[in-house]
Amino acid sequence: MSNGSYTLVYNMLSLGIASMLFTSIFLFVARERVAPRYRMAVMVSGTVTAIAAYHYFRMFDDFKHAFGTDGMGVVAYNVGYRYVDWFLTVPLLLVETVAVLALAATVQRSLLNKLVPAAAAMIALGYPGDAQLNLLYQGDAPLWGLLSTIPFLYILYVLFVELGKGLAGQSEAVQRKIKELRLLLLATWGVYPISFIFNMNATGFDEGGFVLRETGYTIADILAKCLFGLVIFTIARIKSAEDDAEFAKTEFKK
Amino acid sequence: MSNGSYTLVYNMLSLGIASMLFTSIFLFVARERVAPRYRMAVMVSGTVTAIAAYHYFRMFDDFKHAFGTDGMGVVAYNVGYRYVDWFLTVPLLLVETVAVLALAATVQRSLLNKLVPAAAAMIALGYPGDAQLNLLYQGDAPLWGLLSTIPFLYILYVLFVELGKGLAGQSEAVQRKIKELRLLLLATWGVYPISFIFNMNATGFDEGGFVLRETGYTIADILAKCLFGLVIFTIARIKSAEDDAEFAKTEFKK
Repeated sequence: MSNGSYTLVYNMLSLGIASMLFTSIFLFVARERVAPRYRMAVMVSGTVTAIAAYHYFRMFDDFKHAFGTDGMGVVAYNVGYRYVDWFLTVPLLLVETVAVLALAATVQRSLLNKLVPAAAAMIALGYPGDAQLNLLYQGDAPLWGLLSTIPFLYILYVLFVELGKGLAGQSEAVQRKIKELRLLLLATWGVYPISFIFNMNATGFDEGGFVLRETGYTIADILAKCLFGLVIFTIARIKSAEDDAEFAKTEFKK
Repeated sequence: MSNGSYTLVYNMLSLGIASMLFTSIFLFVARERVAPRYRMAVMVSGTVTAIAAYHYFRMFDDFKHAFGTDGMGVVAYNVGYRYVDWFLTVPLLLVETVAVLALAATVQRSLLNKLVPAAAAMIALGYPGDAQLNLLYQGDAPLWGLLSTIPFLYILYVLFVELGKGLAGQSEAVQRKIKELRLLLLATWGVYPISFIFNMNATGFDEGGFVLRETGYTIADILAKCLFGLVIFTIARIKSAEDDAEFAKTEFKK
């Protein structure tokens, strides 16, 4: 791998570690700055970035070992870390999105019963393609990509149509933020299939495709987990102030 | 690298770790010593030094690996750590500066919408020059330095002119501290371009320039993050006492 490609991916993975780890610490401490009812959503957001921080540490070391001077290509880079990470974090991202709305218990349960299994299926179906396991036949990556798209479209349907109904009871400021959140999710989750497609037809190791994929996944992860979690925190702050005038007075300048 | 140069940079990086790490821990615990409204600013200050602590650990190890007896020049020293650090911390330093003033929400949003993108652009434009990537042409470092100066001047304009208007509503003690803060920012941020210029025209590795740059960056970082964060904490204490006579009575001796 060229020196420039190596340094770029190396610095991107380190940026991933720093972003995830300190968003986590911030969110865990900042949970006190929202009303008790919204703390679960903030804590789940902090858990998502903490799980991702762990996996970025692993990927950073794995990358150095696979391509750096200490390993020199003896071991292959393990794309499995990303999928294990997403298998845990993507369902949790949907949990935090629903939790911050503080909907009625039955509505919340119904949304999560749809979103969580769909998210787990989406990730599980993507992995055999991205890792090029060729489980069904040689070059079956596009098929896995296609299968993984079905639960993805179902998640979009639930978020944009079913969750849309739940938004009616929210204030205008919260509705605006939730719409931002959904667009952020759509824009960042869109990066993953694009990165996937870039590598889908690679035979052997393609350096340019690898660098694009790792850079794309990392930027998308930072936006989809750190920025997403901080928007969740902002929604929790707005809703806390709406629910409780006393909270609004001590936390914000009039 | 001579023994003296090696020991100097080594000790400076270790000083960086100690300063950043323990300022962070202090600020996170000390957030309770200010009124709730100001805790976010103190937590952001602690996050900035925590992110920097992570990067100083990385730089310390990287430096030993690049120049110490265990690596002996096999790998190049990665200046990317500093830029990844600044890319995250410089926008956050501006966030803590605005947050501690507890301005009206619309004024705060308008200031941050100007300062945060400008800070990110300033760092992103500086990196290709400092890392001598020669993206545009051989020896294009001065051009990147110049491009990076444009958002820097814009930040100064916003801090000294636009933020200046927001200061009108603050007490005299707070105004004095904010002016100190701006001067500290101007004095420390001024070190970075000077360090940059020292290395700009180096062809190959220049030991003297390297030592000056790393020493300069480290001292500037400690003042711009640790001292800066502690001044933010002091402002938060002053404003907490101004807002709440009960707080003033329990926290300070008359």
